[in-house]
Amino acid sequence: MRYTQLFGKTVKNVSSDLESRNAELLTKAGFVDQLTAGVYTYLPLGLRVLNRIKDIVREEMDAIGGQEILMPALTPKEPWKISGRWDDPGREVMFQFEGHGDKEYALGWTHEEIVTPLVKKFVKSYKDLPVMVYQIQDKFRNEARAKAGLLRGREFSMKDLYSFHRDEAGLVAYYEKTKQAYFNVFKRCGLDAFIVRASGGTFSKYSDEYQVLTDSGEDTIFYCSACRYAENKEVAEMKGGDKCPKCKDGTIIEARAIEVGNIFMNKTKYTDAFDFKYIDETGKPQPVMMGCYGIGPSRVMGTIAEIYNDANGLKWPASIAPCDLHLIEIKSKDEKVREQATALYGALMQTGLEVLYDDREDKGAGEKFADADLIGIPKRIVISEKTLKDESVEIKDRATGETKMVKLVDLGKELEHYFGGCGCGEEHQH
Amino acid sequence: MRYTQLFGKTVKNVSSDLESRNAELLTKAGFVDQLTAGVYTYLPLGLRVLNRIKDIVREEMDAIGGQEILMPALTPKEPWKISGRWDDPGREVMFQFEGHGDKEYALGWTHEEIVTPLVKKFVKSYKDLPVMVYQIQDKFRNEARAKAGLLRGREFSMKDLYSFHRDEAGLVAYYEKTKQAYFNVFKRCGLDAFIVRASGGTFSKYSDEYQVLTDSGEDTIFYCSACRYAENKEVAEMKGGDKCPKCKDGTIIEARAIEVGNIFMNKTKYTDAFDFKYIDETGKPQPVMMGCYGIGPSRVMGTIAEIYNDANGLKWPASIAPCDLHLIEIKSKDEKVREQATALYGALMQTGLEVLYDDREDKGAGEKFADADLIGIPKRIVISEKTLKDESVEIKDRATGETKMVKLVDLGKELEHYFGGCGCGEEHQH
Repeated sequence: MRYTQLFGKTVKNVSSDLESRNAELLTKAGFVDQLTAGVYTYLPLGLRVLNRIKDIVREEMDAIGGQEILMPALTPKEPWKISGRWDDPGREVMFQFEGHGDKEYALGWTHEEIVTPLVKKFVKSYKDLPVMVYQIQDKFRNEARAKAGLLRGREFSMKDLYSFHRDEAGLVAYYEKTKQAYFNVFKRCGLDAFIVRASGGTFSKYSDEYQVLTDSGEDTIFYCSACRYAENKEVAEMKGGDKCPKCKDGTIIEARAIEVGNIFMNKTKYTDAFDFKYIDETGKPQPVMMGCYGIGPSRVMGTIAEIYNDANGLKWPASIAPCDLHLIEIKSKDEKVREQATALYGALMQTGLEVLYDDREDKGAGEKFADADLIGIPKRIVISEKTLKDESVEIKDRATGETKMVKLVDLGKELEHYFGGCGCGEEHQH
Repeated sequence: MRYTQLFGKTVKNVSSDLESRNAELLTKAGFVDQLTAGVYTYLPLGLRVLNRIKDIVREEMDAIGGQEILMPALTPKEPWKISGRWDDPGREVMFQFEGHGDKEYALGWTHEEIVTPLVKKFVKSYKDLPVMVYQIQDKFRNEARAKAGLLRGREFSMKDLYSFHRDEAGLVAYYEKTKQAYFNVFKRCGLDAFIVRASGGTFSKYSDEYQVLTDSGEDTIFYCSACRYAENKEVAEMKGGDKCPKCKDGTIIEARAIEVGNIFMNKTKYTDAFDFKYIDETGKPQPVMMGCYGIGPSRVMGTIAEIYNDANGLKWPASIAPCDLHLIEIKSKDEKVREQATALYGALMQTGLEVLYDDREDKGAGEKFADADLIGIPKRIVISEKTLKDESVEIKDRATGETKMVKLVDLGKELEHYFGGCGCGEEHQH
């Protein structure tokens, strides 16, 4: 992609409403644009990051047997009345409104009330279970305050997986599988997530949250530095400085954290509400056990931006970066520089790597370097009269700041070393 | 994909609210499920078709320089007040509602009011033009009636492209490019679309609609059987039986049709409303010229379902089919049939083709054949005791009904003949 053609450039001055670090950085770097509080447009670079996160989530959900569907965001009142959530939490959380014929709707902020009757239509007997379905979709919440950028939006991207089982043992076994799949998602996105015991609602004593440590987090957690056992302050039975009650070894630390995912066993809360039963081997109706599992890709993106940055800008992990390489041509009177830069851009694109090529003729090296730091693509390649004198380019690692000169003839080998065959920045096999 | 594992099976009896052929077929075949009038869930097979259509649209938009972004569906009142559309068409078309702090919102039913101020932020001078941006997103319309399945939804998928130019010549040149790109989209989806002259709104005399002939269409068009010149009845200056005014040769035919896309030159209607100007080479502010281009992927899917079917079910074009092959194992006491079917399923998956494998043990040949016809995957492969006696399988083409026996050893060659290298069912190079 040529920078001169790219829609959504770096922005010098951003609105002071952007009271969060992630929104400020993502706006300055040209990844998102705030339409109104808690509501963002994803510009081309931002949409690439969001889509790479969604792809990782999708792969991990598919790997544990999740089947992707797409439920509507526009939902009728009736199923919410059945569960009781039309009135509680009601308008505090749900955007509710009327359409033609006085028909009442709410925007989906979660989908238990939609997925439960849907799955009920297709499940009659024990032979039809388990069912694991998920969707990746924008959800809507009538937030009273929305000043945390992508961390708390009024419209936000969500992956919600729902599982249905014939008994609690089946639910628990699948719950443990998703626990691991969630870890995989966060690890692949560059996030070191703690599994944190949290409040479980009506039908379970506890749920599990995935929390990432950062001072800008809205939650307070207590965690053990040795065994990583952790509790949300809301339900914590331990406090900072305690000996860890689990491993009896580490010390408990209090910290701020961002919740990036959560998993629940709702058990029969919704299946009972919708009278969803299955027929067992003996012909008897039995309750269906349900689990719910959420990850917000946009919140994950905001969290990565909060954590992977420095004073100069963003520092994307390679696995979800908008591009692999940021190629900078330093303007020269010698036409050979442009020729070589263009040829190099073409050659790099041929390898399957994604390249942002700063081909601006009216900007100097300083501004180009500053923009590259702000945008935060993992590897920067500089080509200039000076590097070409040595038949080389300079490669800089955004994360470590290390630079090295690489001969043009050796560049292919060097990049293969960084990116492997597929250029995705991940170690696994596609 | 194994049919026993698939979420969303064929359905015998469907609700009589489904007053359209597309909704009835897609529901019976397990592709969609109606949540409420005009609002559908996409089940796994349906989501595959929808995503393949979106991918074709995306490729064609990228090919004409469109850059993908993602704007919010939740939009504030203010930009709609500026254009005047908050009040007209207002609530007739837009879902409008309040959130916390008496803030008023509308759900996006089109995005001129959102994209124009967004692009304005990034365009200062003639050097920043043209800009072509698009998104693929669910839109919402407060339809009074929604009984046409995927053809007229209250929530529906939309690709909307917007282009911004320094002058009318630039707009017209790009408009002609999109005209061709739209043809490519419909052709690749198996649709024979007419470009139909239609009403242009305030700033243009005409717009161009893409219409596909079918009796269930909501529009009436007049077209020339020879040169394909066509006009929507709303603006038509010709009538059925006339000599064609363009080619002077063909005869004009009146027919029902479905609108699957439309393109407009809005020119300065929205750019003026948002005071969006650019600075030309002489330092003078100039008006920005705008074009808008829409295709509804969900409506395209509904249209294909309306056209590609027979009394037994759907007949998907290969390019957007949910799978390439429907493998049917006919139950046998001879365990060799299951063994060979499983081995064949594995081998087919290895080729990169998408296979739906009907592995049900409790269903006979008749029911499996009927479900295969209903689901409408282009090629059906039957493996049974009888075909294996001849070391063969039977291949049936869903569109033509032709069957032939193919030796297992020749199957690879046979499939390569149908699908080529990539298995996508299209002729082009990926």
